[in-house]
Amino acid sequence: MVERSEINMADVARRAGVSVATVSRAMRGLPGVGEATRARILAIADELAYVISPEASRLSSGQTGRVGVVVPATEKWFYGEMLAAIERRLRAADLDVLLYQVSDTEVRRRFFQDLPTRRKVDGVVLIALPLPQEEVDRLDLLGVEVVVAGGRIRDFAHVEVDDRAIAMTAVEHLVGLGHRRIAMIRATIYGDEHWAPDTLRLEGFHQGLEAAGLPLRDDYVISVPFAPTAGAAGTQRLLALDEPPTAILCFSDEIAFGALQGARAAGLSVPGDVSIVGIDDHPLAEVMGLTTVRQDVAGQGERAADMILRRLSHTAVEDHVEPHELVIRTSTGPPRTP
Amino acid sequence: MVERSEINMADVARRAGVSVATVSRAMRGLPGVGEATRARILAIADELAYVISPEASRLSSGQTGRVGVVVPATEKWFYGEMLAAIERRLRAADLDVLLYQVSDTEVRRRFFQDLPTRRKVDGVVLIALPLPQEEVDRLDLLGVEVVVAGGRIRDFAHVEVDDRAIAMTAVEHLVGLGHRRIAMIRATIYGDEHWAPDTLRLEGFHQGLEAAGLPLRDDYVISVPFAPTAGAAGTQRLLALDEPPTAILCFSDEIAFGALQGARAAGLSVPGDVSIVGIDDHPLAEVMGLTTVRQDVAGQGERAADMILRRLSHTAVEDHVEPHELVIRTSTGPPRTP
Repeated sequence: MVERSEINMADVARRAGVSVATVSRAMRGLPGVGEATRARILAIADELAYVISPEASRLSSGQTGRVGVVVPATEKWFYGEMLAAIERRLRAADLDVLLYQVSDTEVRRRFFQDLPTRRKVDGVVLIALPLPQEEVDRLDLLGVEVVVAGGRIRDFAHVEVDDRAIAMTAVEHLVGLGHRRIAMIRATIYGDEHWAPDTLRLEGFHQGLEAAGLPLRDDYVISVPFAPTAGAAGTQRLLALDEPPTAILCFSDEIAFGALQGARAAGLSVPGDVSIVGIDDHPLAEVMGLTTVRQDVAGQGERAADMILRRLSHTAVEDHVEPHELVIRTSTGPPRTP
Repeated sequence: MVERSEINMADVARRAGVSVATVSRAMRGLPGVGEATRARILAIADELAYVISPEASRLSSGQTGRVGVVVPATEKWFYGEMLAAIERRLRAADLDVLLYQVSDTEVRRRFFQDLPTRRKVDGVVLIALPLPQEEVDRLDLLGVEVVVAGGRIRDFAHVEVDDRAIAMTAVEHLVGLGHRRIAMIRATIYGDEHWAPDTLRLEGFHQGLEAAGLPLRDDYVISVPFAPTAGAAGTQRLLALDEPPTAILCFSDEIAFGALQGARAAGLSVPGDVSIVGIDDHPLAEVMGLTTVRQDVAGQGERAADMILRRLSHTAVEDHVEPHELVIRTSTGPPRTP
């Protein structure tokens, strides 16, 4: 059934004499396809769908009553929080949520190869995850509405934060306290080479340093797996440098929780000897006294859910950038030696 | 459609001249229903299902290809972790997961009133949540296989930990270190009066104290909402007593993370002035140096998924008690004043 679905999309393209990408754009109502072409494509698609399966026509009218939510891993707070918000909003609209976890590279590859959501859902909310180009290309083949939450993938409607500005905000806070030796702990996830939030936050970090006239030091940027224990180990590495940083920006609060313990394990006090800043405002950040740049994860999930609801009712949507704010607690202070 | 489904179950009972509970037992293949009665009930059920909807017979043969997972809230680590494990296992068996979050009392009541999983799924995995009796009764009306994960509800197949023994293990550890003034922070969730893990852990706490010949002191047991900040506040209350405890058992690690900070905020050192023990082995427990009683949450989720798979293929299942183990880190030590 899955293979038939793929054949279907290719068949439509062949019969209409256009590319698969054009078929996809036409079906998603995106610009760049002439009205006559679009009408012809939709007619052919309807016809083929009818021949192949009665379920397909039900799908094309958007009536499975289900939305697929694709998420890397629900055990990680960020994804669990966003999924929670999306599910609540969709449930309130009487839609069911089909959950797809595509945590490791292999499962993800299979997901995008099998396109399992086809004919099972009316639309898909894709919670930000790193995708190689070939998998991005395959998203068109889903043949359903797609909304991206917590990031951006090609030209799909999306909700995101401004990762560059978030990192710059954190650096400005540290610079304002008098820090001049500021390090950053980046994070990698699922061994993927390119993860947009990581890349963008690094750019913001660099921009923040440049704006303050501070040098970019290679030894002050390290990359660790996305886990608290890795944050602790990374912090100890940074603090063991001949000229250690007086402040550390961490990719996320969960890395920062590790950093707090790493500093303590190195016999240093926070913020007396070293200041630590996170990003997120994780539920434990308050109790840990962590200074952080807050992003409203649940709010982004709700927005994304609203967006897919609008797409399903053929209403226009606008991309959304969720605001962030600095939350100052007790893990940052002036450096002892500026 | 939902109301027709409920009428259907009641109709079967009326026509067969038995109670709804008996119909449910017969359909779930549980003992206590004679073979002849069972056969008659199933025949009537098939007949009515056929009359009401062709989809119903598809359901009765277990072919939606979907399993419903009912969970209080995916943003809480325990539930996100268990959901992650269940989804992975079901996905590997080519089943889709329909997610239902029933976090607050109102949503839960609506869920159990509407029985939305009916005809949408082949089976349900219910992740432990507090249920009033009327909602427990309604589970029969789902008319599908039910497995309970992380707890126990009536006679449904279930995977659980031994909450009493877990609490006793923690108390024994503290007693072994020489503590005689041991307190417990209980947790409430969603304002529910009776939450089995909380009640059972309290019982285990009492049993542990009794076994050590220690008195049960009312002022050493407090109850807080299930949140780290509440754990911190509760700890400060306990430590402000005229005769404060020298050790605190927390309902869970997330409460214990709060307790660590609460002790620090009270100017006390851990474990010098007060020992803290959690329950779970949360991903942050290691980096926080928290002594805890570990339970394998993902393991329980996998077991529950396996159980529902077996039920769906009409294979017998056995209830399972997941083992636990004490993990000693740096948050516990001998008391200064035994």
